[in-house]
Amino acid sequence: MSRSPSDVPNPAVRRLSLYLRQLETLAATDVATVSSRKLAQSLNLTDAQVRKDLAYFGQFGRPGVGYEVVPLIQRLRGIFGTDRTTHTLIVGAGNLGRAVAAYGGFRAKGFELVAVFDSDEKKIGRKVARLPVQPLEELPEVINKHDVRMAILAVPAGAAQAVADRLIELGIRGILNFAPTPLQVPSSVTTRSVDVAAELEQLSFLTSAE
Amino acid sequence: MSRSPSDVPNPAVRRLSLYLRQLETLAATDVATVSSRKLAQSLNLTDAQVRKDLAYFGQFGRPGVGYEVVPLIQRLRGIFGTDRTTHTLIVGAGNLGRAVAAYGGFRAKGFELVAVFDSDEKKIGRKVARLPVQPLEELPEVINKHDVRMAILAVPAGAAQAVADRLIELGIRGILNFAPTPLQVPSSVTTRSVDVAAELEQLSFLTSAE
Repeated sequence: MSRSPSDVPNPAVRRLSLYLRQLETLAATDVATVSSRKLAQSLNLTDAQVRKDLAYFGQFGRPGVGYEVVPLIQRLRGIFGTDRTTHTLIVGAGNLGRAVAAYGGFRAKGFELVAVFDSDEKKIGRKVARLPVQPLEELPEVINKHDVRMAILAVPAGAAQAVADRLIELGIRGILNFAPTPLQVPSSVTTRSVDVAAELEQLSFLTSAE
Repeated sequence: MSRSPSDVPNPAVRRLSLYLRQLETLAATDVATVSSRKLAQSLNLTDAQVRKDLAYFGQFGRPGVGYEVVPLIQRLRGIFGTDRTTHTLIVGAGNLGRAVAAYGGFRAKGFELVAVFDSDEKKIGRKVARLPVQPLEELPEVINKHDVRMAILAVPAGAAQAVADRLIELGIRGILNFAPTPLQVPSSVTTRSVDVAAELEQLSFLTSAE
């Protein structure tokens, strides 16, 4: 019953993440079933929306019972592909790269960080998240050896596009971009951007009116 | 000439962040002026878009010369309110909160981290980004003393809403939410969310089709 990712609207996929998070919270408190209404309410959505989003992937709920929490978590993780371990690497071992590497949430989401890279000679060999920083020349070997398909970009804005181009050339299909600049990539490659500085600026702007 | 933040569409404000970043990169390489066309091209936008976005805030460019890089940076920082120091605090000293605190980009954006809080007794007194972790009971004192208006939320999903409610009650007007859950806030309060786990899930989903 699973659809091709391109068939499912982005906002629905984004809400799927929210459903998964709520279900994980419920599972942690041993709740066995949940209605679409309750799941919807906890996220300020309508139950019709919840049912429609999940219907992209099959028939999950049971009338009068609702959704079984643990099986639905497993199905959602299967849909996201986070039920198996995905190898990832970080390029950029500066402040931002080290902070991202230190974030423990990767493993819980099925991502294993296998290597950290930097172009700065002085950083090579230093430990980041227990991994020695490697020079960019070693990217091909690491990507091949660990079958890495996704990479995290935490380099300065000016270097981001060149590094992204190189990663894509080496077979990377998905890039989580923390560099504060947009990337131009071929349509076969997916990027998601997290720009903490821009979020801070937006907040500062939006809260400055008195 | 400055507008009320609510008059300016969100996507325009977001692009303003991109312009600022590109201008900062140009300034770092001693470029004195830039045309709207060149600024647009580097971001894959049209020059009309750039001119329109900037026109919300006044008349910046000069015909035949373009934008003067350093003065425009100063104006944009003024618009964002990042030309002065904004005090901020972090609630949550777990993996995520520590990673966010370690991120050096705050200061460059005019934000000074003045305190870190956690509800876990065992974390109180530990140093995070050179600040001792404080109990939540000390929030009112710190917010008053440092005139804190913006806060960073890095607590588990289950605790996020209660902490946000408390922060708002104490006068916080803007929240940068790293907790993987949406927040319900009054219209007088602005939130921006950064959900790294959700971005990873989206990437995993979108790159899983072979």
